[in-house]
Amino acid sequence: MRIAIVVTARPSYAKVSTVIGALLKRGAEVHILACASALLERYGRVVDVMRKDWPDVPIEEVWSTYEGATLLTSAKETGALLTEISSHLLRLRPDFALVVADRHEVVAAAQAAAYLHVPLVHVQGGERTGSIDDKCRDAITQLSEVHCVATRRAAFRVYGLTGSDAIHITGCGSIDIAKDARNSAPVTAVELGGAGADIDLVKPFVVVLQHPVTDEMADAAHQMQVTLDAVREHKLPALVLWPGQDAGHDAMAKVIRMTDGIHTVRNLPPARFLRLLTQCSALVGNSSAGIREASYLGTPVINIGSRQTGRERGPNVRDVPSGEPLATIRAIYDQVTHGPFKSSTLYGKGDSGERIAEVLCGR
Amino acid sequence: MRIAIVVTARPSYAKVSTVIGALLKRGAEVHILACASALLERYGRVVDVMRKDWPDVPIEEVWSTYEGATLLTSAKETGALLTEISSHLLRLRPDFALVVADRHEVVAAAQAAAYLHVPLVHVQGGERTGSIDDKCRDAITQLSEVHCVATRRAAFRVYGLTGSDAIHITGCGSIDIAKDARNSAPVTAVELGGAGADIDLVKPFVVVLQHPVTDEMADAAHQMQVTLDAVREHKLPALVLWPGQDAGHDAMAKVIRMTDGIHTVRNLPPARFLRLLTQCSALVGNSSAGIREASYLGTPVINIGSRQTGRERGPNVRDVPSGEPLATIRAIYDQVTHGPFKSSTLYGKGDSGERIAEVLCGR
Amino acid sequence: MRIAIVVTARPSYAKVSTVIGALLKRGAEVHILACASALLERYGRVVDVMRKDWPDVPIEEVWSTYEGATLLTSAKETGALLTEISSHLLRLRPDFALVVADRHEVVAAAQAAAYLHVPLVHVQGGERTGSIDDKCRDAITQLSEVHCVATRRAAFRVYGLTGSDAIHITGCGSIDIAKDARNSAPVTAVELGGAGADIDLVKPFVVVLQHPVTDEMADAAHQMQVTLDAVREHKLPALVLWPGQDAGHDAMAKVIRMTDGIHTVRNLPPARFLRLLTQCSALVGNSSAGIREASYLGTPVINIGSRQTGRERGPNVRDVPSGEPLATIRAIYDQVTHGPFKSSTLYGKGDSGERIAEVLCGR
Amino acid sequence: MRIAIVVTARPSYAKVSTVIGALLKRGAEVHILACASALLERYGRVVDVMRKDWPDVPIEEVWSTYEGATLLTSAKETGALLTEISSHLLRLRPDFALVVADRHEVVAAAQAAAYLHVPLVHVQGGERTGSIDDKCRDAITQLSEVHCVATRRAAFRVYGLTGSDAIHITGCGSIDIAKDARNSAPVTAVELGGAGADIDLVKPFVVVLQHPVTDEMADAAHQMQVTLDAVREHKLPALVLWPGQDAGHDAMAKVIRMTDGIHTVRNLPPARFLRLLTQCSALVGNSSAGIREASYLGTPVINIGSRQTGRERGPNVRDVPSGEPLATIRAIYDQVTHGPFKSSTLYGKGDSGERIAEVLCGR
Repeated sequence: MRIAIVVTARPSYAKVSTVIGALLKRGAEVHILACASALLERYGRVVDVMRKDWPDVPIEEVWSTYEGATLLTSAKETGALLTEISSHLLRLRPDFALVVADRHEVVAAAQAAAYLHVPLVHVQGGERTGSIDDKCRDAITQLSEVHCVATRRAAFRVYGLTGSDAIHITGCGSIDIAKDARNSAPVTAVELGGAGADIDLVKPFVVVLQHPVTDEMADAAHQMQVTLDAVREHKLPALVLWPGQDAGHDAMAKVIRMTDGIHTVRNLPPARFLRLLTQCSALVGNSSAGIREASYLGTPVINIGSRQTGRERGPNVRDVPSGEPLATIRAIYDQVTHGPFKSSTLYGKGDSGERIAEVLCGR
Repeated sequence: MRIAIVVTARPSYAKVSTVIGALLKRGAEVHILACASALLERYGRVVDVMRKDWPDVPIEEVWSTYEGATLLTSAKETGALLTEISSHLLRLRPDFALVVADRHEVVAAAQAAAYLHVPLVHVQGGERTGSIDDKCRDAITQLSEVHCVATRRAAFRVYGLTGSDAIHITGCGSIDIAKDARNSAPVTAVELGGAGADIDLVKPFVVVLQHPVTDEMADAAHQMQVTLDAVREHKLPALVLWPGQDAGHDAMAKVIRMTDGIHTVRNLPPARFLRLLTQCSALVGNSSAGIREASYLGTPVINIGSRQTGRERGPNVRDVPSGEPLATIRAIYDQVTHGPFKSSTLYGKGDSGERIAEVLCGR
Repeated sequence: MRIAIVVTARPSYAKVSTVIGALLKRGAEVHILACASALLERYGRVVDVMRKDWPDVPIEEVWSTYEGATLLTSAKETGALLTEISSHLLRLRPDFALVVADRHEVVAAAQAAAYLHVPLVHVQGGERTGSIDDKCRDAITQLSEVHCVATRRAAFRVYGLTGSDAIHITGCGSIDIAKDARNSAPVTAVELGGAGADIDLVKPFVVVLQHPVTDEMADAAHQMQVTLDAVREHKLPALVLWPGQDAGHDAMAKVIRMTDGIHTVRNLPPARFLRLLTQCSALVGNSSAGIREASYLGTPVINIGSRQTGRERGPNVRDVPSGEPLATIRAIYDQVTHGPFKSSTLYGKGDSGERIAEVLCGR
Repeated sequence: MRIAIVVTARPSYAKVSTVIGALLKRGAEVHILACASALLERYGRVVDVMRKDWPDVPIEEVWSTYEGATLLTSAKETGALLTEISSHLLRLRPDFALVVADRHEVVAAAQAAAYLHVPLVHVQGGERTGSIDDKCRDAITQLSEVHCVATRRAAFRVYGLTGSDAIHITGCGSIDIAKDARNSAPVTAVELGGAGADIDLVKPFVVVLQHPVTDEMADAAHQMQVTLDAVREHKLPALVLWPGQDAGHDAMAKVIRMTDGIHTVRNLPPARFLRLLTQCSALVGNSSAGIREASYLGTPVINIGSRQTGRERGPNVRDVPSGEPLATIRAIYDQVTHGPFKSSTLYGKGDSGERIAEVLCGR
């Protein structure tokens, strides 16, 4: 059994790292195709993390990202990736190709697999987030043979889209990591590194992680500004992570660079980021981690804007529209005051890697 | 109102030629992006037909087809088209981009439009044909904003896939052409041209049009052989059209070249092909025209193999599995004996161009 | 010592097949990157010949040729090849990459090697042929580290271009094959196959091999017509080989298909083609074989038009301008009447493979 | 007369801005194709400067740069540009395409023009700088029809490479700008903007501009470190400009960001940069401006390392090897002490734009 796992971004790896372990345990031959932002310095080259995590797994780099991060370059780099990755898949001829989630690069990988008749496993289909990602995610679902979804509602949606009888509710791989992270040593400031104002992780602090919304690109800078202003209003120390690679990134990064009194961190291993979520008073922004892992970890979340619209959520999430200073300030106050929530298994119990490997290889 | 119409193949043009006329009549600014096999000599360069039909419409050529027609080149050329066409769409900035049907190149055009936030109109979504085209068609549907479908059943499927409230049952543009064709002068042997054995179009004859099936590529030569043998068994003069550009084409073309006693024709304007369908005793093969236009024209059809599986059909169609000599021979006998069927409006009444233009521009 | 040999066309393989043998004999690790027309059915997929010739050499296919064969697609496919082959070269990390001659695809391979700091060996630089190939050939020379040229005059030119001290006069690999071919069994009509009029290879006949000239693309059909008419004027049986893949090919192929009374052959292994040159009364056209191998074999050659302008030639060549019926007819008469010429070593003695391998690996 | 000017980087624009003016004055129809780093925020998007400078000239953006800036992405983006720009050139069908200098992207533009039979004008061929740029520059020369070189020695080299009789010694366009700049108002700190330590431009200061050397990529960070350390040794205020986009850029940028006590500036209009050169005590680094414009302006230059090797230079240049702290410190001392040099016309008299326009359009 040969399986090609396509990783196009740091968050995707978090979803499949336990799958890789569970596949290897079952004797499968795993190949990793590292693409797109997984290769870029700017995003911490998760390909290097994977090389360290899996020294015996062959990892190929498939370069295709255009510089510019505009709508046009999103289209062009998807084309470039499709052209390139098809050669890799043809050479590997895997029994399955596995892709994750909904980024535009994933559509390219999915098309390559579909055209080459490589059965495609789609992890994390059927969800709703309210932007162009919805279109991409559903298009990938249409191109897939096997669907490993995170939640019951996602399964229903995928069934509606495909009528497939190869839909499996496996939970989300990131909950596997969250489960382990909960038991690990706390994150310290030394470990954290980063730049800007000092931060003391044993005192209360909030974490900010806000990505550009493709459909609202022109508003990216303003959205980031409102969030940072609201956080600073509370005088709580703020730890800001850099936004992801999407049209609008550059504008947001500029706002962060020009804001004083915050501590910025470029990259954090997913497991450590999740441990951090158990330490902070609240997570502010629009990261999917606020919806998914944080529901399992019980972290209070202030979820801003449309990026996670439609995603199922647990009781730990408080939604506010983007660009609303007062609502944002109030929501932060309420959530910080509330303190940790009870753990929810909405997105899985922490055994997703094992269950996906079972689907592909049997027990 | 500026509308970019993407034409990737001869049959696609047949579906939108009356749309172009109806849009121009309403004062819309129409641009045509001619792509893929629409540019290739081997397929009669429908771009030249369009230039002649619409001398005032700007037509840009977007070259991307790789030579080889393998599964790999299908993937690569889709990538190349996505990379190229995105520049064209960005420069045009149309109010709508319109794409047709389900070929792999269309996925590229649809992705480019989706990433660039150009509202996408998909003509002929929601159908079923039982090959990788189904995946492509549904993926395109997911990337689209407006859906102009041919039949009621297609509308139901698109609603299930998208929940969209922009689904319009407009019929199929090819029925518009069929309607006109019915009243035109009969096709003559002189007009036909072509090569091989002579053919007399006022005496009984059958038309053969069989395309490779992507999923059954290895079987392509054999499928064509069985069809040609069955036709020749009946001693009816046979007019063979060349198969379309898909993996397997070369093998089929070779079989045709090595068969004696048949008349071959490389290209025929769509309208003339449809007129021919009203003259022939039967159409043999797996062309969608046998299912769609022929239902309106009442032509007896012997539909071979899986290529049209799942497509709605009228009473004029007799299905046989591919590669079954006896069943094929028998079906040809029955259909030729039956003679013309009653016209059906399953795929429209011949006003599709007007109705699609109405959807985009109003009456 | 790991060496990547880039083969982009059938004639290129003829130039390096003995190099491969000589490298393997010296223990080098040879990889072949088969690109462009080396992969295409239309040109007899020389990649399959190579797989048969060297079952233990890893051969990778790098697809990039666009369908269309226009000036535009020449540019685009060069770009596509550059993008693709760079990944292959990076993965192989060879000690040398070896490229041959002057086709536009070779520029892409040369650039990829140059940018990746892979030392580039250029075989057959420094010659002159009077079309855009001159520009490409000299551009490749500029990108190369080691130059294995065929003739003394070529060495002088390369020195003038580069001032390099890594210029080696190794002769042309095709003479190695010509040397062996001379001693092999004659080609028979049965072995030849092909289509059209019968041909008897033990009686006098002429061989026609004429390629399109990129700079005179619009004239391609006419040039082929004049040549075929002149040949038929002599009532000598004519064996016509299909022209090569360049802008203008389709027009020429059409003329050939519409000419009666000739025998056409799609592909012939290089060695057998050379044996044929020792059997025919004359070679008519603009093939480089008429200048190079034929000089060694002593075949009378009527060289038409500008394609070989500037190439050094032996006494066996009679030049005529293209599109001149009378001059062409007269030249054919003279050369056929003259009969075989004395062998010349202008392009080498048949030890080119050994000498190039020596340059790279030592004796 | 229609002329397409290909600008791939900020420095290229400096070489042709006066050409554009002189062409427009002569009634030529000028089109600009803005490519590669000319489009990137990181390099100050010179395309926006051009739009402002020439509001009536149509400027098309041709995106192709890959993120990553490795040797591999250099190859890939050259391929992507070749594929894209060929469509633009075919659509424009200019009488001439004009390219500048030697970057790898320029090879792509030159190939596209050559294949499409667009006569290519190469500005700034025939020079020597001692890295892979030499190969690219000479390859571009081979693909060109008209050569507008800066110096007599460059003319000799181009003649040796091509034997062409279309070689014109026109001087360098950057001297045109230098000539004007000399008479403009001095640059002020306010105008300068930038980040880091304050700088007073009416007191003595040095300018640092050092780019990565492709062949010495691994050493990039160290080279920058030695230069910055040497400058700080002298306690002279330092104004550091960001290095150009080439493999190694990221490492250099990191060193600059981590150095205290320097003032950094991201972009400066070429004319203002040249005015600055008349104000500073010395220019330190490996910019070609130190060799070219500075010779005309008389600025003392400390030229570090191999990047300008082989380039003709005036008396104002003092060369030191890269990575040599003591030699660098000493050279800075000597040059600052010497003060301004006498103006040299080695690279032109400031009329290059007029002369190149004359070559293309006549007086």
